[in-house]
Amino acid sequence: MKLATAMLIALAAAATVAPAQGTRAKNRAGGKPMSPPAAVSVAAPALAGYTREALFGDLWKRPGLTPRDRCIVTLAALITRNQTVELPYYMNLALEDGVKPGEISGMITHLAFYAGWENAIAAAAAAREVFARRGIPADQLPPAGGPRLELEEAAETERAKITEQSIGPLFPGMVAYTNGLLFRDLWLRPDLAPRDRSLVTVCCLIASGQLLPLAHHLNRAMDHGLTQTQAAEAVTHLAFYAGWPFAVSALPIMKDVFAKRP
Amino acid sequence: MKLATAMLIALAAAATVAPAQGTRAKNRAGGKPMSPPAAVSVAAPALAGYTREALFGDLWKRPGLTPRDRCIVTLAALITRNQTVELPYYMNLALEDGVKPGEISGMITHLAFYAGWENAIAAAAAAREVFARRGIPADQLPPAGGPRLELEEAAETERAKITEQSIGPLFPGMVAYTNGLLFRDLWLRPDLAPRDRSLVTVCCLIASGQLLPLAHHLNRAMDHGLTQTQAAEAVTHLAFYAGWPFAVSALPIMKDVFAKRP
Amino acid sequence: MKLATAMLIALAAAATVAPAQGTRAKNRAGGKPMSPPAAVSVAAPALAGYTREALFGDLWKRPGLTPRDRCIVTLAALITRNQTVELPYYMNLALEDGVKPGEISGMITHLAFYAGWENAIAAAAAAREVFARRGIPADQLPPAGGPRLELEEAAETERAKITEQSIGPLFPGMVAYTNGLLFRDLWLRPDLAPRDRSLVTVCCLIASGQLLPLAHHLNRAMDHGLTQTQAAEAVTHLAFYAGWPFAVSALPIMKDVFAKRP
Repeated sequence: MKLATAMLIALAAAATVAPAQGTRAKNRAGGKPMSPPAAVSVAAPALAGYTREALFGDLWKRPGLTPRDRCIVTLAALITRNQTVELPYYMNLALEDGVKPGEISGMITHLAFYAGWENAIAAAAAAREVFARRGIPADQLPPAGGPRLELEEAAETERAKITEQSIGPLFPGMVAYTNGLLFRDLWLRPDLAPRDRSLVTVCCLIASGQLLPLAHHLNRAMDHGLTQTQAAEAVTHLAFYAGWPFAVSALPIMKDVFAKRP
Repeated sequence: MKLATAMLIALAAAATVAPAQGTRAKNRAGGKPMSPPAAVSVAAPALAGYTREALFGDLWKRPGLTPRDRCIVTLAALITRNQTVELPYYMNLALEDGVKPGEISGMITHLAFYAGWENAIAAAAAAREVFARRGIPADQLPPAGGPRLELEEAAETERAKITEQSIGPLFPGMVAYTNGLLFRDLWLRPDLAPRDRSLVTVCCLIASGQLLPLAHHLNRAMDHGLTQTQAAEAVTHLAFYAGWPFAVSALPIMKDVFAKRP
Repeated sequence: MKLATAMLIALAAAATVAPAQGTRAKNRAGGKPMSPPAAVSVAAPALAGYTREALFGDLWKRPGLTPRDRCIVTLAALITRNQTVELPYYMNLALEDGVKPGEISGMITHLAFYAGWENAIAAAAAAREVFARRGIPADQLPPAGGPRLELEEAAETERAKITEQSIGPLFPGMVAYTNGLLFRDLWLRPDLAPRDRSLVTVCCLIASGQLLPLAHHLNRAMDHGLTQTQAAEAVTHLAFYAGWPFAVSALPIMKDVFAKRP
């Protein structure tokens, strides 16, 4: 019985990625139809209304953050929260709004470390399918090896020293992986621009309620070009995709970061 | 191989909604059989025992919170935690224990904002199926538009002023959506009684560990009729459905709210 | 369309449990092949590289925590985070690395109370399938009843008194269930050694970001034999499976516990 249910739900959900119908709203970014899944219109007409008017009709069209950036914020939130149902939909939207396949692949790899390995595994399964359907060849995806970005040696030495002093020698594995694998390898991968990598990290922290490292990573994002307006729009966007409480909790920390920057 | 696995699991899970068998315990609320899924009895007999005796046999029968309210608390927890497997089971239970289809639809819409949009999308897919199987017509579900409840103007103006002062003008989007879309629209929808809407919000905050706004919303719930006993039973109920640590963490805040109320 | 997608993903995922191929790395623990799922290699080659080299090739081979313990830590993280996709893979790995079926069953039962009931229900469905495929008979699984371990009466009376004083009589249900059902029944079940039960609890708390009771349970784990090195390796392991921020947030509390122990 439940199997039939699951199939009916799957078929219903398929409507969310079906070709545009006449009445569907157009997203300004790429002519992409953006509308609530059919099940929402049936079971929660009010939610369908908010999805059309507030979410797609207003939030996604706000100035201050490009549709490309909004796609990055949304994907970061969905992968962090392990929400795979609409992940293919938003990956397709991202590709149409200027996010490159290699950037999606890079986000997945980055979020393995920040949102948990299994979240990335699940996102990779969705991405494989999306890439295959669009005929994206493997050589557009960043390899495991290859050159790395140049390390900002002074800043990183300082950061590593703080980590070493605060948790080593009690947690030698954490120190070794953090100072080696993460900040001398993952963070130097060229598949994401440093500003985007930090934006993804900031969104992951907010969407998972992990606020302790938020100030550090928000500063890093802004050092690499994220503006205060963009940061404010990103957290507003996350209010919808991660829930109001997660966004609201981040505001005092963000406000403090804004105030202390030169 | 995994597909076969998935199907076997789906078939096994189907047993959870199968017609009552002779030995199944009856829920006092509506003659509804409440028993652990078959897979639990096989793989974790001790968990099956706790489900029968502690969960269904004791917790759900405690006085202080009606079965209807326990259904609301449970649905709020499941939607907040994006746990869709047993969502149809508990939606059916809720409908049998006096929760109206329009209230389930209203909860889903409300939780889009408090638990994240994708959680509500997933819950809507489950609700559509449950409503369809029960032949619930669309006109029993609250429309997007329609009249709103009257605003408590003084209290809301005060709340909005605090939001404005604390985060505007740094986060104009958050201020606009919070003071407009949320508190002058969503919160005034008549599909949930104000007491129930606040109860749903309180459960969402506890189940997601977002405790910063808990005092505000618990006070609001109690202002609208939630008793101290009901609040205490709700968090006890959540200990089972969200996990002990989430409930325990909420207790000091709740205790403080209880102490400070006139 | 989405149904087809779901099936393709399921088929792709099936590759993760397919028989070992020639090139697959061997885990030292039991000749078990450990390699990333096929979808990861296609859509995120860099993540596949990290999975092979950092995760399976390095983390899992670190001294200080046995493969059996690493399996327990991983299962605790996955069940706590409700990540069922690779749960069968890791349950099989656990069984090959020395975790007994009854211990997996015991972990599921324990985590119903600490990670939320529905997480345990989902894990039981996965375990049933894994046990069935391996022909594990029901009599290897711990029954609901049976003898309990001896209570450490003095310590438990002290713990119960603190609970009673801090939250009773405001939360009578929480007090009754915590002091009865949990600490005079669940915690005394013999299906998990006390050290392992506490390790599972510690991992659950870290993986869900519920740090308030962490000091208590880490002390309890160490009282029952968990070494400081094992605790440090466990949180390092969780950095990968729950995400870096969750592990990092736990470190100050763990450091404080280490410092204060005699």
